[in-house]
Amino acid sequence: MTQEPRYGAGLWHFAQYVDRYATDGYGPPVSTLEAIDLAGQVGDLAVVDITYPFNPPGLTPGEVAEALKRNNLGAIGITPEIYTREFCRGAFTNPDAAVRARTFDLVGEAVGVARELGCDYVKLWPGQDGHDYPFQVDHGQIWSYAVTGLRALAQAHPETKFAIEYKPREPRVSMFFSSAAKTLLAIEDVGVGNIGILMDFGHSLYGGESPAEAARLIHSRGLLYGIDVNDNFRGWDDDLVVGSVHLTETLEFFYALRECGWDGVWQLDQFPFREDSVEAAREGINTMRTIHRALDLLDAAALREAQHRQDALAANKIVRRALLNSQAAA
Amino acid sequence: MTQEPRYGAGLWHFAQYVDRYATDGYGPPVSTLEAIDLAGQVGDLAVVDITYPFNPPGLTPGEVAEALKRNNLGAIGITPEIYTREFCRGAFTNPDAAVRARTFDLVGEAVGVARELGCDYVKLWPGQDGHDYPFQVDHGQIWSYAVTGLRALAQAHPETKFAIEYKPREPRVSMFFSSAAKTLLAIEDVGVGNIGILMDFGHSLYGGESPAEAARLIHSRGLLYGIDVNDNFRGWDDDLVVGSVHLTETLEFFYALRECGWDGVWQLDQFPFREDSVEAAREGINTMRTIHRALDLLDAAALREAQHRQDALAANKIVRRALLNSQAAA
Amino acid sequence: MTQEPRYGAGLWHFAQYVDRYATDGYGPPVSTLEAIDLAGQVGDLAVVDITYPFNPPGLTPGEVAEALKRNNLGAIGITPEIYTREFCRGAFTNPDAAVRARTFDLVGEAVGVARELGCDYVKLWPGQDGHDYPFQVDHGQIWSYAVTGLRALAQAHPETKFAIEYKPREPRVSMFFSSAAKTLLAIEDVGVGNIGILMDFGHSLYGGESPAEAARLIHSRGLLYGIDVNDNFRGWDDDLVVGSVHLTETLEFFYALRECGWDGVWQLDQFPFREDSVEAAREGINTMRTIHRALDLLDAAALREAQHRQDALAANKIVRRALLNSQAAA
Amino acid sequence: MTQEPRYGAGLWHFAQYVDRYATDGYGPPVSTLEAIDLAGQVGDLAVVDITYPFNPPGLTPGEVAEALKRNNLGAIGITPEIYTREFCRGAFTNPDAAVRARTFDLVGEAVGVARELGCDYVKLWPGQDGHDYPFQVDHGQIWSYAVTGLRALAQAHPETKFAIEYKPREPRVSMFFSSAAKTLLAIEDVGVGNIGILMDFGHSLYGGESPAEAARLIHSRGLLYGIDVNDNFRGWDDDLVVGSVHLTETLEFFYALRECGWDGVWQLDQFPFREDSVEAAREGINTMRTIHRALDLLDAAALREAQHRQDALAANKIVRRALLNSQAAA
Repeated sequence: MTQEPRYGAGLWHFAQYVDRYATDGYGPPVSTLEAIDLAGQVGDLAVVDITYPFNPPGLTPGEVAEALKRNNLGAIGITPEIYTREFCRGAFTNPDAAVRARTFDLVGEAVGVARELGCDYVKLWPGQDGHDYPFQVDHGQIWSYAVTGLRALAQAHPETKFAIEYKPREPRVSMFFSSAAKTLLAIEDVGVGNIGILMDFGHSLYGGESPAEAARLIHSRGLLYGIDVNDNFRGWDDDLVVGSVHLTETLEFFYALRECGWDGVWQLDQFPFREDSVEAAREGINTMRTIHRALDLLDAAALREAQHRQDALAANKIVRRALLNSQAAA
Repeated sequence: MTQEPRYGAGLWHFAQYVDRYATDGYGPPVSTLEAIDLAGQVGDLAVVDITYPFNPPGLTPGEVAEALKRNNLGAIGITPEIYTREFCRGAFTNPDAAVRARTFDLVGEAVGVARELGCDYVKLWPGQDGHDYPFQVDHGQIWSYAVTGLRALAQAHPETKFAIEYKPREPRVSMFFSSAAKTLLAIEDVGVGNIGILMDFGHSLYGGESPAEAARLIHSRGLLYGIDVNDNFRGWDDDLVVGSVHLTETLEFFYALRECGWDGVWQLDQFPFREDSVEAAREGINTMRTIHRALDLLDAAALREAQHRQDALAANKIVRRALLNSQAAA
Repeated sequence: MTQEPRYGAGLWHFAQYVDRYATDGYGPPVSTLEAIDLAGQVGDLAVVDITYPFNPPGLTPGEVAEALKRNNLGAIGITPEIYTREFCRGAFTNPDAAVRARTFDLVGEAVGVARELGCDYVKLWPGQDGHDYPFQVDHGQIWSYAVTGLRALAQAHPETKFAIEYKPREPRVSMFFSSAAKTLLAIEDVGVGNIGILMDFGHSLYGGESPAEAARLIHSRGLLYGIDVNDNFRGWDDDLVVGSVHLTETLEFFYALRECGWDGVWQLDQFPFREDSVEAAREGINTMRTIHRALDLLDAAALREAQHRQDALAANKIVRRALLNSQAAA
Repeated sequence: MTQEPRYGAGLWHFAQYVDRYATDGYGPPVSTLEAIDLAGQVGDLAVVDITYPFNPPGLTPGEVAEALKRNNLGAIGITPEIYTREFCRGAFTNPDAAVRARTFDLVGEAVGVARELGCDYVKLWPGQDGHDYPFQVDHGQIWSYAVTGLRALAQAHPETKFAIEYKPREPRVSMFFSSAAKTLLAIEDVGVGNIGILMDFGHSLYGGESPAEAARLIHSRGLLYGIDVNDNFRGWDDDLVVGSVHLTETLEFFYALRECGWDGVWQLDQFPFREDSVEAAREGINTMRTIHRALDLLDAAALREAQHRQDALAANKIVRRALLNSQAAA
């Protein structure tokens, strides 16, 4: 490989977490500027993806830009918070037209901030879109809401790239944008040129996809706008440190991305609830570096040949030799 | 409802089952003609879907037609066995071109039989297409094999409808045609007019889909060629008796189909490993009848209104009142 | 049935929920007294299980008692919050002895409150006990911490019943008290007479148990101290309204409890994130009433006979006839 | 480490597989003697676990012993086939007393064969014991059948060790011996000294246990009689090659066993449906060797210290450095 990959992180990696049990948070509150300073401490991050509105809301893009600059960080994306209380029954698919309009407006604000910070994309994380119960929604109607809402956004901001992050569930029991394939079908119905996908390794894994296969499918349609990495136990979006559970499939995902010519950011979406967030980011990046080394060690020609025979044992041996040697090569 | 729905069954419902433990079978061998006679004993079946080659292989379509006739049964579909030993590494996506050609030929034979028996479709059950291990296949290559193989088939038999039955896994650890959305994307790439989907309620359920939503999605593209019903515990394709676990979601699935104007066959795909197959079919049909009655009892206007508000509690109450009253209305 | 069952609810059913996305809450803050008033509005609740410390912390047991009284409610249990920030790395199994001591103290305070309010038990909800990552803990050590901590508690408060609520995961990725059987083994090791289990239907279901079987197992050892009911999709603790997904298995659970002679409270543990909490409780209770009616309708002698033959079809028919008739009998 | 571990395999690893789709088998029939010869070809196997009755049934223990001898193999265990057609509704928990008696007899025959071949244990694989449907069984009754049947066996053959292999499901939809903890409770009820557990890594993994934790729990009660290794995707007992998916958790399992002082056999229970069985065994053993090397490389003191702090990041780093270096050390 000729150049070092660029690493990024969702800025929430460094924020305060809460859940329905530790309602007082898994640590003290962290402002946007403090989170940026923590991201800066990691030492190996090039970019961050920033949620909007900032915390506190009065913070200006200029102040954020300054904090990024002093930490040698760029902003790769803005993630408008279309999943807080007012959107808890849906953003694009909310039954209330006023909330759907508010979604349009908030994402529009995020577009402005993204432009100001020089971002590559505005991320759409429609975690509250979907349903919880059988019989709760008219599936045709919410498909229509989703497609119509996305189209209006994309047409209102034709110069902005919107990246949808799909996930099977959480916070909604059943999310509308649940898989790579369904999201691709919906994007097709939208029929614009500036909506793609930010693919999260963990979401794909616990959704029952092969992440490597999903990446290839999305890329084959020209719609792979970003990737997030982390890990889990296939039952939930645990957002664990990269490679802590699924080393082989992380390697396969990275291999698929390299095959696709991916030259974007390798971005962390970890939630270190009970760990030091800076250390967790470093561990994630160190693992990613090791994975990249394993890719360099991989006998790609032999692997390709084994895959053409669909020879699982030969492939396993080739992969084992590279992966379990990758640390030594450091 | 103005007319009684037509009920069907996969003929394998009445066959001998084996698995990797009870290799001597969960009962004695059953020939195709014996299975048809068992289907006839059920009393409420209008049609069956028949696997091909017949058992024993020497059996002619004429003999099968006669057995169907004496049991007042029609043949709704033919399912070529593209999942036995010779296809165990894949039918459409097999790495060996000779096996892919053999798939083309065997399905072609099934087309002839289907025509002779007056079937509506030839079912494609590509259970061996996919992979088992990380890194085993080049996902782009098997996508191409699948699309190319289907296109050749569809073009060679333009007057025949082919119905793909998707499933997340089993027998292959990871099946290629794994979900409604991915199958729709592949069919789109094939680009012909005679390939659609046979949707199995249980496959959808344990694949993490909402079956009602998947049915609507497939129907919205005009590709719902058939349905199979059964039940499971969401972790595997248990093929239990209809409604034995998920009454509410079965009702929601039937509701979606009625909304879509489905007037095809309501078909059993149960595997009564340890039960009497005739009795299991009767119990499945009796449950389906009850579900249809529940649909008649459902306050559809109120439900529609609740769904437009996405009001889960209101919908739950409406459904409970219909469903838990449906037996009494018998 | 000779008498109406008593219904209860966790008071958190009526509180504000937050999660890692809607960090501003799925509704406005709700104090303990407000929650009690909401519980009172339901109209059919006899008792509540109350988290401690109260909200706000200054609130006295006397004030709580008064609020309960004016709402005709009793307190069935106190649930000390051993899962908030200070306990986020574990209560009983925390690596820090000071936090383990703090657990002892907080539960001790809850014992006092429980006595003052006339509760039946102090509930232990050790959601933060366990681990997140492979290799994170010495499993022998945390087993020892758990057993030792419980024993100290039970011996310090010999007149109090402690009910452990097990769950496979959440908030901890892997909870220590994960299943009925493992919790029974740990209780056995503790070797006291006043520690039992509060069994949550949903936890059991998504943990892969048969809730009816788990109830019987716990009861057979004399350790069934309480039950919670709700529903989910078997992949997570969704805490949906009772019976909204699994009517048959809810009925089977209630049947098992009746067989065990359960005469305690039938308690709601629902989290109506996006619904009206009073209406959600009413819908849960109405469903429980219907389930009880279905039990009355069940041909118990025929069912028993079918079960002795392990005849799934016969049992299914008997159950269907009772369950799908139960609303009509209202 | 002072000595090379001993490796073993279930003899079925080398047999013909069938399932409900490839009913003609994933390859030609393989007799017991042929399977032993295949096991011998692997080159690194010390022992095999042999199913009984032999194939063909006329084969004598003497002939089997001779085949083992010429392949330098020992017999570690005998697995009576209490899961074929006659036992398909249960062995120990079958509703028919005659089948329960037949279970006693067949296992008794296996005891004789085990003695003749110098085995360490008779394995009990009660895959057909349990239920498929809600309401199908009286859980108290089948608990009683299981405990009574095991007790009779253990008392009839007091000099023989019986190892129960638990699994959540398959072939039965819900297996009675489903988890480590539940099996330990049942063994406790049996109250004899010669019934323990053969723990299968993959069963534990897809049952939602931490295999390392389950091993420790079983060992702490002195009941770890054997282990099987393989891998899967956590949703089913895929019986893939060791380490092909879960390298880190396999290492953790091996670490736990070393901590327990395990000096028994490291046994393969892989099902290479579509692979060469000899090559699959070699790949499994080569991976196990690499895992053992990783154990040697592990900084055990630092790991222990990290675990006492429950420091996931420190543990992850220690493990990564050993595991991803283990191939290089070869």
